[in-house]
Amino acid sequence: VIELIGFDADDTLWHNEIYYRQAQDELRAILSPYQQPGRIDDHLYQTEMKNLDHFGYGTKGFILSMIETAIELSQGCIPSSEIVKIINLGKQMLQADVVLLDHVQDAVADLAGTYPLVLITKGDLLDQQRKLGGSGLTAYFQQVEIVSEKSPDLYLNLLQNLDVAPICFLMVGNSLRSDIQPVLDIGGQAVFVPYQITWQHEIAEEADWSGEPGCHQLEHLGQLPDLVAQLNS
Amino acid sequence: VIELIGFDADDTLWHNEIYYRQAQDELRAILSPYQQPGRIDDHLYQTEMKNLDHFGYGTKGFILSMIETAIELSQGCIPSSEIVKIINLGKQMLQADVVLLDHVQDAVADLAGTYPLVLITKGDLLDQQRKLGGSGLTAYFQQVEIVSEKSPDLYLNLLQNLDVAPICFLMVGNSLRSDIQPVLDIGGQAVFVPYQITWQHEIAEEADWSGEPGCHQLEHLGQLPDLVAQLNS
Repeated sequence: VIELIGFDADDTLWHNEIYYRQAQDELRAILSPYQQPGRIDDHLYQTEMKNLDHFGYGTKGFILSMIETAIELSQGCIPSSEIVKIINLGKQMLQADVVLLDHVQDAVADLAGTYPLVLITKGDLLDQQRKLGGSGLTAYFQQVEIVSEKSPDLYLNLLQNLDVAPICFLMVGNSLRSDIQPVLDIGGQAVFVPYQITWQHEIAEEADWSGEPGCHQLEHLGQLPDLVAQLNS
Repeated sequence: VIELIGFDADDTLWHNEIYYRQAQDELRAILSPYQQPGRIDDHLYQTEMKNLDHFGYGTKGFILSMIETAIELSQGCIPSSEIVKIINLGKQMLQADVVLLDHVQDAVADLAGTYPLVLITKGDLLDQQRKLGGSGLTAYFQQVEIVSEKSPDLYLNLLQNLDVAPICFLMVGNSLRSDIQPVLDIGGQAVFVPYQITWQHEIAEEADWSGEPGCHQLEHLGQLPDLVAQLNS
């Protein structure tokens, strides 16, 4: 029986990855005098991964990794006016409108009437709070956890604090790596709702999870209330 | 009667502001070909304040504000090799040793034997977690709150969740603005322990708080166990 439902935020409740992709498009344009477009995405991703231990997740670290990428791929030739452009790209991301995915408003409002909901998200503290505020969904969540990594231990501690057994917890998200695998690992249940695009880092191998007990997949959040009703019937 | 003790982290438990000042010294050296040193600190502070709504507190935003300052004060003439130096200054800050202030280890261990302790800190999520891990103090804290702003509401909500009346809460910190004033505002008690240097933003006017009931001042944390014993006698 499901007693608690957890939601990922970025690309589960609202659009996020598209803003990163738009910034990368702009970065490719800025770097077009220096490099072939194909090299740029790879180099940026490698820089992000190299910086992850220092910067963690979120937009501020992404801006810094874009700046490093621009300097390295231009072999130091990029003028500082272009670096200002990159910083401003980042600031635009930090002010971007929060656009809910289809069906999210109704599904979350519906489920909040019956179940306690928690939001569990990675990223920069202030930016995630801003997006939640802009989403209009704050009141539906009993608890909001902004975390540096979604590990099995993170989920276990959260459930212990809320006095919920893992088998009674259902996590909903678009990342196999962060939302699905660690929850299945601790004996919880999970609903995978793929987003139209996935950041390379969040992709996990399908073989690791598909067919596991407790794992479900939906096309959109409008289907979630029926699934939960079915699981609890 | 004190039932719960809250601790600020940076410059209350361990050194922090000195690393920011060291980075600013380096920035002044990097910008010495372009600007008088006096202009640099002012411009950096103004840039940080302008960016606070976007970036929040912490090292990543500080690095971005240093980069902006360097580009603006050099009127775009700074070579990108110097911007790489600034990013590396920031990465050094994110790897700096955690050095406890005098008396902290003993005072925290002592008080944790009798009272539940909570840590309440601003900054980047991952960086604050790293510093707490490096401090060796993790096990003494019942709860750790990394927050985007220390407002009266933040403290009120925390106390409500822990079921502690404000008058039974004692907050210990080096910032009048973040650790002392908001806690006195909600009817709690506070211990101001000034650090050797204070970031301009965290300075509050003495007139606003001195002599207020519930406010205490100590020279170092070694004096805290005696003060708490006295308050509870």
